Amino acid sequence: MDFKEIENKVIRFRDERNWAQFHQIKDLLLGLNIEVGELQELYLWKSTEQQTQIDPEKIKDELADIAIFLMYISRHHNIDLLEAISAKIDKNAAKYPVEKSLNSNKKYNEL
Amino acid sequence: MDFKEIENKVIRFRDERNWAQFHQIKDLLLGLNIEVGELQELYLWKSTEQQTQIDPEKIKDELADIAIFLMYISRHHNIDLLEAISAKIDKNAAKYPVEKSLNSNKKYNEL
Amino acid sequence: MDFKEIENKVIRFRDERNWAQFHQIKDLLLGLNIEVGELQELYLWKSTEQQTQIDPEKIKDELADIAIFLMYISRHHNIDLLEAISAKIDKNAAKYPVEKSLNSNKKYNEL
Amino acid sequence: MDFKEIENKVIRFRDERNWAQFHQIKDLLLGLNIEVGELQELYLWKSTEQQTQIDPEKIKDELADIAIFLMYISRHHNIDLLEAISAKIDKNAAKYPVEKSLNSNKKYNEL
Repeated sequence: MDFKEIENKVIRFRDERNWAQFHQIKDLLLGLNIEVGELQELYLWKSTEQQTQIDPEKIKDELADIAIFLMYISRHHNIDLLEAISAKIDKNAAKYPVEKSLNSNKKYNEL
Repeated sequence: MDFKEIENKVIRFRDERNWAQFHQIKDLLLGLNIEVGELQELYLWKSTEQQTQIDPEKIKDELADIAIFLMYISRHHNIDLLEAISAKIDKNAAKYPVEKSLNSNKKYNEL
Repeated sequence: MDFKEIENKVIRFRDERNWAQFHQIKDLLLGLNIEVGELQELYLWKSTEQQTQIDPEKIKDELADIAIFLMYISRHHNIDLLEAISAKIDKNAAKYPVEKSLNSNKKYNEL
Repeated sequence: MDFKEIENKVIRFRDERNWAQFHQIKDLLLGLNIEVGELQELYLWKSTEQQTQIDPEKIKDELADIAIFLMYISRHHNIDLLEAISAKIDKNAAKYPVEKSLNSNKKYNEL
């Protein structure tokens, strides 16, 4: 399946339940963060070795939940998310020229 | 462009700068949340009407930054993000049957 | 009880369990956000009226969890949190003069 | 200064600007998270050694901003934050008995 099909599947799931009425933007923004917290919780306090024992299904589910909220918010604003990512990478590439940012963890305004 | 191409573009951007060395999972999880905060800040305190004046380019950029971190984390675990989203929607559909969840904002364990 | 006593109670709770060994700063920062997510989840999707039915004990517990992480992080850096709050309000008062910011939801750089 | 005085200073700062009108609970919850993101950003990508070079004033300011939002939310619900923290530590102590949780980073339901 491609991105558009998955996005349509997400939106169809919502619309079959008539949930757009609850999807105020500030709730979507809270939901996004709640899901990020749930992903983070899988790793909290864990050493590198303990992390190898995290159930991969749980990681997948939490990453998916975050992506689903991203799709709801993109749709709310009629944003083409793939195009936005591609354009942002182009901007980042201009802000972080390879020769200056190679092997560096500095922010662009400190390079 | 399709999802795989965009994902490869994101990873190539990183690898050209040799940044994987900084991409410890806990940093990626912090970065994800930092970007969510930047998206939220665009809306903070704003009324519905004031929200219409937010620069759409900024929304696109912040959504893209979040998606880029999702891709870094997915790659870190060799997760196929699109497949994970599709599988999660199937799980959600089982947890939220249409006849019970139509027009309801309750959690599945309260339905 | 005063602030210092409560802070000491929090740190004593931790030290009796010998947990400082797990309290790396990046974990504390993740934990802080996880707790914020749990607080937010109490309100997600809820209308103003539905919010009145949230169990106040849960709100208290989540606010406390966030404050406990703040205390761990403050202690990590030997920061006097009360003094930091007081100093920050003084800075904010300078950034947001009453005559400019009265009834305004603008950021200081837009006033 | 004690906690109540600082809390009153925070609320007075807000009320002099008549900002309670903007302090809807969902905005306060977003603001809380935005400030957590700003604190996290100080540490992002940084090695333990690089962290020693973070400006302590910035850490103080960000911790204070988070605490200020906690105070706004507590006041919104007429919650005594110090009392809530003390009660939560008592609950945590019951969930994490010293003999089971000493030197352990497991969650209480895995002990």
